[in-house]
Amino acid sequence: MDPFMQAAIEEAQQGLAEGGIPIGSVIVHQGRIIGRGHNRRVQQGSAIRHGEMDAFENAGRQSAQTYRESVLYTTLSPCAMCSGAILLYGIPRVIIGENQTFMGEEELLRSRGVEVEVLQEATCVALMEDFIAARPELWNEDIGE
Amino acid sequence: MDPFMQAAIEEAQQGLAEGGIPIGSVIVHQGRIIGRGHNRRVQQGSAIRHGEMDAFENAGRQSAQTYRESVLYTTLSPCAMCSGAILLYGIPRVIIGENQTFMGEEELLRSRGVEVEVLQEATCVALMEDFIAARPELWNEDIGE
Repeated sequence: MDPFMQAAIEEAQQGLAEGGIPIGSVIVHQGRIIGRGHNRRVQQGSAIRHGEMDAFENAGRQSAQTYRESVLYTTLSPCAMCSGAILLYGIPRVIIGENQTFMGEEELLRSRGVEVEVLQEATCVALMEDFIAARPELWNEDIGE
Repeated sequence: MDPFMQAAIEEAQQGLAEGGIPIGSVIVHQGRIIGRGHNRRVQQGSAIRHGEMDAFENAGRQSAQTYRESVLYTTLSPCAMCSGAILLYGIPRVIIGENQTFMGEEELLRSRGVEVEVLQEATCVALMEDFIAARPELWNEDIGE
Protein backbone atom coordinates (compact mmCIF):
# COMPACT_ATOMS: atom_id res chain seq x y z
CA MET A 1 0.00 0.00 0.00
CA ASP A 2 1.01 3.61 -0.54
CA PRO A 3 3.06 4.45 2.59
CA PHE A 4 1.32 7.82 3.03
CA MET A 5 -2.14 6.21 2.92
CA GLN A 6 -0.77 3.69 5.40
CA ALA A 7 0.22 6.59 7.67
CA ALA A 8 -3.28 8.09 7.37
CA ILE A 9 -4.78 4.70 8.27
CA GLU A 10 -2.50 4.49 11.31
CA GLU A 11 -3.84 7.88 12.41
CA ALA A 12 -7.40 6.60 11.97
CA GLN A 13 -6.59 3.50 14.00
CA GLN A 14 -5.04 5.62 16.73
CA GLY A 15 -8.23 7.69 16.86
CA LEU A 16 -10.29 4.54 17.19
CA ALA A 17 -8.06 3.29 20.01
CA GLU A 18 -8.70 6.61 21.80
CA GLY A 19 -12.46 6.03 21.57
CA GLY A 20 -12.79 8.44 18.67
CA ILE A 21 -14.00 8.51 15.09
CA PRO A 22 -11.56 6.52 12.89
CA ILE A 23 -10.59 9.00 10.20
CA GLY A 24 -6.98 10.00 9.62
CA SER A 25 -5.05 12.26 7.31
CA VAL A 26 -1.52 13.29 6.41
CA ILE A 27 -0.20 16.22 4.38
CA VAL A 28 2.89 15.42 2.32
CA HIS A 29 5.34 17.96 0.94
CA GLN A 30 8.09 16.78 -1.37
CA GLY A 31 7.92 13.22 -0.10
CA ARG A 32 7.84 14.14 3.61
CA ILE A 33 4.88 14.24 6.01
CA ILE A 34 4.57 17.81 7.32
CA GLY A 35 1.29 17.33 9.19
CA ARG A 36 -0.65 14.32 10.40
CA GLY A 37 -3.85 14.03 12.37
CA HIS A 38 -7.09 12.27 13.15
CA ASN A 39 -10.64 13.19 14.07
CA ARG A 40 -10.82 14.49 17.65
CA ARG A 41 -14.54 15.15 18.13
CA VAL A 42 -14.69 12.75 21.07
CA GLN A 43 -11.20 13.26 22.47
CA GLN A 44 -11.30 17.09 22.50
CA GLY A 45 -15.04 17.72 22.29
CA SER A 46 -14.20 19.42 19.01
CA ALA A 47 -16.60 20.33 16.20
CA ILE A 48 -13.78 21.35 13.84
CA ARG A 49 -11.03 18.76 14.37
CA HIS A 50 -11.86 16.41 11.56
CA GLY A 51 -8.91 14.28 10.47
CA GLU A 52 -7.91 16.60 7.64
CA MET A 53 -8.33 19.74 9.80
CA ASP A 54 -6.19 18.16 12.51
CA ALA A 55 -3.48 17.47 9.93
CA PHE A 56 -3.62 21.12 8.77
CA GLU A 57 -3.44 22.29 12.38
CA ASN A 58 -0.55 20.01 13.26
CA ALA A 59 1.34 21.12 10.13
CA GLY A 60 1.37 24.61 11.64
CA ARG A 61 1.70 27.83 9.68
CA GLN A 62 3.04 27.00 6.23
CA SER A 63 3.73 29.22 3.23
CA ALA A 64 1.32 29.33 0.29
CA GLN A 65 4.10 27.82 -1.81
CA THR A 66 4.39 24.80 0.48
CA TYR A 67 0.65 24.10 0.39
CA ARG A 68 0.66 24.38 -3.40
CA GLU A 69 3.33 21.68 -3.63
CA SER A 70 1.60 19.33 -1.18
CA VAL A 71 -0.61 16.27 -1.41
CA LEU A 72 -3.29 15.56 1.19
CA TYR A 73 -4.12 11.95 2.03
CA THR A 74 -7.30 11.13 3.90
CA THR A 75 -8.89 7.80 4.76
CA LEU A 76 -12.40 9.09 3.91
CA SER A 77 -13.88 11.37 1.25
CA PRO A 78 -13.56 14.91 2.67
CA CYS A 79 -16.67 16.76 3.93
CA ALA A 80 -17.52 20.35 3.00
CA MET A 81 -15.41 21.84 5.82
CA CYS A 82 -12.29 19.84 5.01
CA SER A 83 -12.76 20.36 1.27
CA GLY A 84 -13.05 24.09 1.97
CA ALA A 85 -9.72 24.02 3.82
CA ILE A 86 -8.16 22.18 0.86
CA LEU A 87 -9.46 24.94 -1.45
CA LEU A 88 -8.42 27.78 0.89
CA TYR A 89 -4.83 26.60 0.94
CA GLY A 90 -4.69 25.54 -2.69
CA ILE A 91 -3.75 21.89 -2.10
CA PRO A 92 -3.52 20.61 -5.70
CA ARG A 93 -3.94 16.88 -5.13
CA VAL A 94 -6.02 14.78 -2.74
CA ILE A 95 -5.75 11.00 -2.33
CA ILE A 96 -8.85 9.45 -0.72
CA GLY A 97 -8.96 6.07 1.02
CA GLU A 98 -12.61 5.43 0.24
CA ASN A 99 -15.89 7.13 -0.63
CA GLN A 100 -18.27 4.17 -0.29
CA THR A 101 -19.42 4.92 3.27
CA PHE A 102 -19.51 8.72 2.79
CA MET A 103 -19.31 10.81 -0.36
CA GLY A 104 -17.82 14.21 0.40
CA GLU A 105 -17.31 17.25 -1.81
CA GLU A 106 -15.20 15.54 -4.46
CA GLU A 107 -17.11 17.19 -7.30
CA LEU A 108 -16.59 20.66 -5.80
CA LEU A 109 -12.87 19.95 -5.47
CA ARG A 110 -12.61 18.74 -9.07
CA SER A 111 -14.62 21.73 -10.32
CA ARG A 112 -11.97 23.99 -8.77
CA GLY A 113 -9.11 22.14 -10.41
CA VAL A 114 -8.05 19.82 -7.57
CA GLU A 115 -6.84 16.40 -8.71
CA VAL A 116 -8.81 13.80 -6.73
CA GLU A 117 -7.94 10.12 -6.62
CA VAL A 118 -9.99 7.48 -4.78
CA LEU A 119 -8.22 4.24 -3.82
CA GLN A 120 -11.22 2.32 -2.34
CA GLU A 121 -8.95 0.63 0.20
CA ALA A 122 -10.72 -2.25 1.93
CA THR A 123 -9.05 -1.32 5.24
CA CYS A 124 -10.57 2.19 5.12
CA VAL A 125 -14.02 0.87 4.22
CA ALA A 126 -13.94 -1.68 7.05
CA LEU A 127 -12.87 0.96 9.60
CA MET A 128 -15.85 3.15 8.74
CA GLU A 129 -18.41 0.35 8.30
CA ASP A 130 -17.60 -1.10 11.71
CA PHE A 131 -17.61 2.34 13.34
CA ILE A 132 -20.91 3.49 11.76
CA ALA A 133 -22.57 0.21 12.78
CA ALA A 134 -21.31 0.59 16.35
CA ARG A 135 -21.86 4.34 16.86
CA PRO A 136 -24.37 5.68 14.31
CA GLU A 137 -25.37 8.67 16.49
CA LEU A 138 -21.76 9.82 16.82
CA TRP A 139 -21.17 9.46 13.11
CA ASN A 140 -24.32 11.44 12.27
CA GLU A 141 -23.21 14.20 14.65
CA ASP A 142 -19.84 14.39 12.92
CA ILE A 143 -21.35 14.88 9.47
CA GLY A 144 -23.95 17.34 10.73
CA GLU A 145 -26.96 15.05 10.52
CA MET B 1 -26.11 48.34 15.15
CA ASP B 2 -27.30 44.73 15.35
CA PRO B 3 -26.13 43.57 18.80
CA PHE B 4 -24.85 40.26 17.43
CA MET B 5 -22.75 41.98 14.75
CA GLN B 6 -21.53 44.26 17.55
CA ALA B 7 -20.47 41.15 19.49
CA ALA B 8 -18.63 39.82 16.42
CA ILE B 9 -16.86 43.18 16.06
CA GLU B 10 -15.84 43.07 19.73
CA GLU B 11 -14.30 39.66 19.07
CA ALA B 12 -12.40 41.11 16.09
CA GLN B 13 -11.17 44.00 18.22
CA GLN B 14 -10.05 41.61 20.94
CA GLY B 15 -8.09 39.66 18.34
CA LEU B 16 -6.42 42.87 17.16
CA ALA B 17 -5.54 43.79 20.75
CA GLU B 18 -3.85 40.37 21.07
CA GLY B 19 -1.69 41.12 18.01
CA GLY B 20 -3.88 38.97 15.79
CA ILE B 21 -5.96 39.22 12.64
CA PRO B 22 -9.12 41.27 13.37
CA ILE B 23 -11.93 38.96 12.30
CA GLY B 24 -14.64 37.90 14.72
CA SER B 25 -17.74 35.74 14.67
CA VAL B 26 -20.66 34.65 16.83
CA ILE B 27 -23.18 31.83 16.39
CA VAL B 28 -26.67 32.70 17.63
CA HIS B 29 -29.36 30.17 18.52
CA GLN B 30 -32.84 31.41 19.36
CA GLY B 31 -31.58 34.86 20.30
CA ARG B 32 -28.65 33.66 22.42
CA ILE B 33 -24.95 33.49 21.55
CA ILE B 34 -23.87 29.83 21.82
CA GLY B 35 -20.35 30.30 20.41
CA ARG B 36 -18.07 33.28 19.87
CA GLY B 37 -14.55 33.54 18.56
CA HIS B 38 -11.87 35.35 16.63
CA ASN B 39 -9.02 34.49 14.31
CA ARG B 40 -6.12 32.92 16.26
CA ARG B 41 -3.48 32.38 13.56
CA VAL B 42 -0.98 34.53 15.43
CA GLN B 43 -2.05 33.79 19.00
CA GLN B 44 -2.10 29.98 18.64
CA GLY B 45 -0.01 29.50 15.50
CA SER B 46 -3.17 28.05 14.02
CA ALA B 47 -3.95 27.45 10.35
CA ILE B 48 -7.57 26.51 11.05
CA ARG B 49 -8.75 28.93 13.75
CA HIS B 50 -10.37 31.53 11.56
CA GLY B 51 -12.96 33.63 13.39
CA GLU B 52 -15.89 31.49 12.27
CA MET B 53 -14.05 28.23 13.01
CA ASP B 54 -13.16 29.51 16.47
CA ALA B 55 -16.84 30.29 17.09
CA PHE B 56 -17.81 26.75 15.99
CA GLU B 57 -15.12 25.28 18.24
CA ASN B 58 -16.12 27.38 21.23
CA ALA B 59 -19.78 26.44 20.73
CA GLY B 60 -18.74 22.85 21.39
CA ARG B 61 -20.61 19.79 20.20
CA GLN B 62 -24.14 20.83 19.23
CA SER B 63 -27.00 18.83 17.75
CA ALA B 64 -27.83 19.05 14.05
CA GLN B 65 -31.16 20.60 15.07
CA THR B 66 -29.41 23.43 16.94
CA TYR B 67 -27.14 24.27 14.01
CA ARG B 68 -30.15 24.28 11.68
CA GLU B 69 -31.87 26.89 13.86
CA SER B 70 -28.79 29.10 14.18
CA VAL B 71 -27.49 32.26 12.53
CA LEU B 72 -23.77 32.86 12.06
CA TYR B 73 -22.45 36.43 12.21
CA THR B 74 -18.99 37.20 10.90
CA THR B 75 -17.21 40.52 10.43
CA LEU B 76 -15.79 39.44 7.04
CA SER B 77 -17.06 37.45 4.08
CA PRO B 78 -16.27 33.78 4.91
CA CYS B 79 -13.44 31.97 3.09
CA ALA B 80 -13.79 28.49 1.56
CA MET B 81 -12.91 26.70 4.83
CA CYS B 82 -15.40 28.65 6.96
CA SER B 83 -18.07 28.43 4.27
CA GLY B 84 -17.49 24.69 4.18
CA ALA B 85 -18.08 24.48 7.94
CA ILE B 86 -21.30 26.47 7.50
CA LEU B 87 -22.42 23.95 4.84
CA LEU B 88 -21.33 20.89 6.86
CA TYR B 89 -23.45 21.94 9.81
CA GLY B 90 -26.36 23.28 7.80
CA ILE B 91 -26.32 26.83 9.19
CA PRO B 92 -29.26 28.37 7.28
CA ARG B 93 -28.40 32.08 7.60
CA VAL B 94 -25.15 34.05 7.57
CA ILE B 95 -24.85 37.77 8.33
CA ILE B 96 -21.61 39.30 7.00
CA GLY B 97 -20.06 42.54 8.23
CA GLU B 98 -18.41 43.39 4.92
CA ASN B 99 -17.14 41.87 1.68
CA GLN B 100 -15.30 44.88 0.25
CA THR B 101 -11.81 43.91 1.44
CA PHE B 102 -12.28 40.18 0.78
CA MET B 103 -14.97 38.32 -1.15
CA GLY B 104 -15.43 34.84 0.22
CA GLU B 105 -17.59 31.97 -0.96
CA GLU B 106 -20.91 33.78 -0.78
CA GLU B 107 -22.05 32.43 -4.13
CA LEU B 108 -21.32 28.84 -3.10
CA LEU B 109 -23.32 29.38 0.09
CA ARG B 110 -26.27 30.86 -1.80
CA SER B 111 -26.13 28.05 -4.39
CA ARG B 112 -26.62 25.57 -1.52
CA GLY B 113 -29.60 27.46 -0.12
CA VAL B 114 -27.93 29.50 2.64
CA GLU B 115 -29.44 32.95 3.16
CA VAL B 116 -26.55 35.45 3.02
CA GLU B 117 -26.86 39.07 4.06
CA VAL B 118 -24.05 41.63 3.78
CA LEU B 119 -24.25 44.71 6.01
CA GLN B 120 -21.18 46.62 4.70
CA GLU B 121 -20.50 48.02 8.16
CA ALA B 122 -17.94 50.82 8.06
CA THR B 123 -16.38 49.57 11.32
CA CYS B 124 -15.70 46.17 9.78
CA VAL B 125 -14.23 47.67 6.61
CA ALA B 126 -11.94 49.99 8.60
CA LEU B 127 -10.70 47.11 10.80
CA MET B 128 -9.63 45.11 7.75
CA GLU B 129 -8.30 48.03 5.68
CA ASP B 130 -6.06 49.18 8.50
CA PHE B 131 -4.89 45.65 9.22
CA ILE B 132 -4.15 44.75 5.57
CA ALA B 133 -2.20 47.99 5.13
CA ALA B 134 -0.17 47.29 8.28
CA ARG B 135 0.42 43.52 7.86
CA PRO B 136 -0.09 42.50 4.22
CA GLU B 137 2.12 39.37 4.52
CA LEU B 138 0.11 38.07 7.48
CA TRP B 139 -3.16 38.70 5.70
CA ASN B 140 -1.96 36.89 2.57
CA GLU B 141 -0.88 33.93 4.67
CA ASP B 142 -4.32 33.74 6.27
CA ILE B 143 -6.13 33.58 2.94
CA GLY B 144 -3.63 31.13 1.46
CA GLU B 145 -1.85 33.56 -0.86
